[in-house]
Amino acid sequence: MSNNKISIPCYKLSFLAELIGAELIGDDIEVSGISSIDFQVSNTVSILSLSSKLKLYDGDAAALIISDDIYKKQQEFGKPILKVRDSRLSVVKMLNLFYPKQDVKQSISSHSIIGEQVDIGSPVEIGHYTVIGDNTVIGDNTIIKHNTVIGNSVTIGNNCTIHSNVTIYDDVVLGDNVVLHSGAVIGADGFGFVPTGDIPIAIQQKGNVVLGDYVEIGANTCVDRATLGSTVVERGTKLAALVMVGHNTVIGKSCLVASQAGFSGSMLVGDNVLVAGQVGFSDHINIASNTVFGGQAGVNNDVKEAGMYMGSPCMPMLKYARSFAIFAKLPDLLRRVRDLENKSN
Amino acid sequence: MSNNKISIPCYKLSFLAELIGAELIGDDIEVSGISSIDFQVSNTVSILSLSSKLKLYDGDAAALIISDDIYKKQQEFGKPILKVRDSRLSVVKMLNLFYPKQDVKQSISSHSIIGEQVDIGSPVEIGHYTVIGDNTVIGDNTIIKHNTVIGNSVTIGNNCTIHSNVTIYDDVVLGDNVVLHSGAVIGADGFGFVPTGDIPIAIQQKGNVVLGDYVEIGANTCVDRATLGSTVVERGTKLAALVMVGHNTVIGKSCLVASQAGFSGSMLVGDNVLVAGQVGFSDHINIASNTVFGGQAGVNNDVKEAGMYMGSPCMPMLKYARSFAIFAKLPDLLRRVRDLENKSN
Amino acid sequence: MSNNKISIPCYKLSFLAELIGAELIGDDIEVSGISSIDFQVSNTVSILSLSSKLKLYDGDAAALIISDDIYKKQQEFGKPILKVRDSRLSVVKMLNLFYPKQDVKQSISSHSIIGEQVDIGSPVEIGHYTVIGDNTVIGDNTIIKHNTVIGNSVTIGNNCTIHSNVTIYDDVVLGDNVVLHSGAVIGADGFGFVPTGDIPIAIQQKGNVVLGDYVEIGANTCVDRATLGSTVVERGTKLAALVMVGHNTVIGKSCLVASQAGFSGSMLVGDNVLVAGQVGFSDHINIASNTVFGGQAGVNNDVKEAGMYMGSPCMPMLKYARSFAIFAKLPDLLRRVRDLENKSN
Repeated sequence: MSNNKISIPCYKLSFLAELIGAELIGDDIEVSGISSIDFQVSNTVSILSLSSKLKLYDGDAAALIISDDIYKKQQEFGKPILKVRDSRLSVVKMLNLFYPKQDVKQSISSHSIIGEQVDIGSPVEIGHYTVIGDNTVIGDNTIIKHNTVIGNSVTIGNNCTIHSNVTIYDDVVLGDNVVLHSGAVIGADGFGFVPTGDIPIAIQQKGNVVLGDYVEIGANTCVDRATLGSTVVERGTKLAALVMVGHNTVIGKSCLVASQAGFSGSMLVGDNVLVAGQVGFSDHINIASNTVFGGQAGVNNDVKEAGMYMGSPCMPMLKYARSFAIFAKLPDLLRRVRDLENKSN
Repeated sequence: MSNNKISIPCYKLSFLAELIGAELIGDDIEVSGISSIDFQVSNTVSILSLSSKLKLYDGDAAALIISDDIYKKQQEFGKPILKVRDSRLSVVKMLNLFYPKQDVKQSISSHSIIGEQVDIGSPVEIGHYTVIGDNTVIGDNTIIKHNTVIGNSVTIGNNCTIHSNVTIYDDVVLGDNVVLHSGAVIGADGFGFVPTGDIPIAIQQKGNVVLGDYVEIGANTCVDRATLGSTVVERGTKLAALVMVGHNTVIGKSCLVASQAGFSGSMLVGDNVLVAGQVGFSDHINIASNTVFGGQAGVNNDVKEAGMYMGSPCMPMLKYARSFAIFAKLPDLLRRVRDLENKSN
Repeated sequence: MSNNKISIPCYKLSFLAELIGAELIGDDIEVSGISSIDFQVSNTVSILSLSSKLKLYDGDAAALIISDDIYKKQQEFGKPILKVRDSRLSVVKMLNLFYPKQDVKQSISSHSIIGEQVDIGSPVEIGHYTVIGDNTVIGDNTIIKHNTVIGNSVTIGNNCTIHSNVTIYDDVVLGDNVVLHSGAVIGADGFGFVPTGDIPIAIQQKGNVVLGDYVEIGANTCVDRATLGSTVVERGTKLAALVMVGHNTVIGKSCLVASQAGFSGSMLVGDNVLVAGQVGFSDHINIASNTVFGGQAGVNNDVKEAGMYMGSPCMPMLKYARSFAIFAKLPDLLRRVRDLENKSN
């Protein structure tokens, strides 16, 4: 475990049961932390549902948090159990208990460069070798780590965390509670060129990017600036690592987008859309709210009805699965057609 | 709009009509800028074709630039119109009018580190916390922004823009008018290993990367150095964000490559090739000039004839579309074969 | 050639033949370096197998290294030949001869920031504008280049090379002989959110990343930290550029993973697995050792048997190839079924 250097308080299982709405089965012992089921640490409580890949009921953990369905399958674990309905929310609450949010401390590195007319809230942390451009605004309780570059006329809200080695181009707007992971590039030029047969003519990109409140952007993810107007990621949407968002695209609220997915330009994506890894979207299409895309789906047309889609080009998931099942047996189908032909001749 | 702080000059519509070869329909009013059709700003002219996703003819813009085909569909817009043939070139010209290129100012940050025997042109801008290695050459009118690392014996031409947080390894050569966006990595080691059953043996990568004039490289895009010789991207080719170019590959002139496409090693790609997002190419293959690849195409063999290709493995687009149309109805085909079998028994 | 500034020693071909186990055919001349077959340099020996895309037997090189199979096809080259069985291992040996590993020199830039209680080995190179957090350990003979950020409580082994603009988050553990290329992000938060219909609830990510000995990580590749426990890449595994490894995934020993492949979270990957470009893996699945995945494969289930797989969803390669061959001719199959229907009516 990586994080056992911090002194972590102890809690009785009965206290934890109350916190997460669990039923305690077994002794009301004390535990001093939580650990992964795969890397169990003694004196801690381990959460079984975090990983299904190993069934190590008999590791070193002092107690286990287990969901109803797992408990039904195996009732004997040899240690105290906290039985819960939704183990994922239990994880959230337990992590927030054992790892309470640290206060932001006012701290601006003397090895950073702050431009002119910059409006910095309080408290704010700015790391080493970070560069902040002119006319930029930074809200309260915001942390900007090391070697990050923030352009001119950028607006950053309150309670944001900008990790190291991030780049934010000019004119970008971030709401409150935004998280940008390392290597993220927000506001690079949209990919706009007019082909000519010779050197393509570049279209200047003079719009910006707007990220709503509670948006999180994964490591090395890119959100390109609009040609004119704004590329927008709305409130509560989370993009994983190595995701691409093209220029002038608008992604709605509370979407979850897995790694290496790519949105082309001038798209309009609804709310609560779930996008699996490596999904690709064509430009200038609209995606209905509450849609779900399976991994590697290729979306080249409007999706007007919520539902689950997969395949490239994508289709409703059930339809794709039925066709693919027959695809996998095409040699058999071909043989059957040959047999029929032989019979008919 | 992000960019309304700069004082922007006013122009009469008749002046703009002349500039972009448009027909003015309506009053010859003055406008003070351009804006996106989705985020119209009063007193500006808005360009309709930039986005097809919203049809806001009735926004705040004072006038509209509209292409012939849109004008035919709806002749009443309630405001002056500039009617053009090619709205994309109009966009280019209007942006260049309202956002004229800024002169490069001689400015080398005292918070940067310049190696020995570095030959720096004039004027040149070098940003904060940028590191430039020994024996490197930087041409005139070139801008290198902040926190960028340039290796030893690198050659950078005139009129280049290297954005922040870029990494250029040793021995890389950039032509004139090259643009590298943030997070781009030019010249990292090619992926060369000899499998052994145990630890693979690394093949040292001692070649370099050569980017021709007018090459543009998107955010977080990687071009690996050659084992020996050069990985080459030729004149006028534009790579979007998160693209991969493998070692010893040569990409021809004036290609347009969308985000997350990947070129393996030792490929030879012709000129004017258009590559959509998430296309993947196998190593050691040759691609004919003027080829077009649809999104997520998987190219695992030489493509000898120009044309449009899609699918994984890819096929001519029309052929793929026909097969895919039947794939989508495979359950129907299977049923028909079953019916025939029942009849024949 | 990029690297002809260093004075390179001369060797007789007979010496090189002995080194790489080759048969010398022709005069025992001296050569002063190696060069790519595509960019031949006079006075050097060129290695034919490095690239199959050009057959330039008649370039400027003074001699050629050629594998048995190429030699059989064309016995007349007009210059001395070193004939070998395994040309790839010859490349490794020749590169190591002409480009011997440089000694690490003790050198810590005064323009870097080293935290408290940092334990730095000797000799160690630390570049400009690099930030190293508190309680971090750096082994002997390790090089950390410029503008790199290393968090708190990180452990880095001996003989590692961390290139410029890398980010390593807190608590990450690197073994010996690890290489991280520029833009790599090791230990960013895993993508863990609980959907709620409104803003998804973030699950704190408090585990770490462990990279084994001889692991290499390509440019802009991301390995996310575990929620609890560790995301692990084991000894000898090499990841190319723009690869994604999700949280809590364990990748086994000596795997080779090509660019833009993506591993979801909580996977268990065996040893000696070969993964081509743009392959995607679903979460919570197990992959057998010695498996091979073709480009763009989509792996959404456990793979229990070693073998070659392709397609999305993936299937054994031969099975996929057979089905795909029929897919490509589906219009023909449909026509044959129609003919049968017409006959039967």
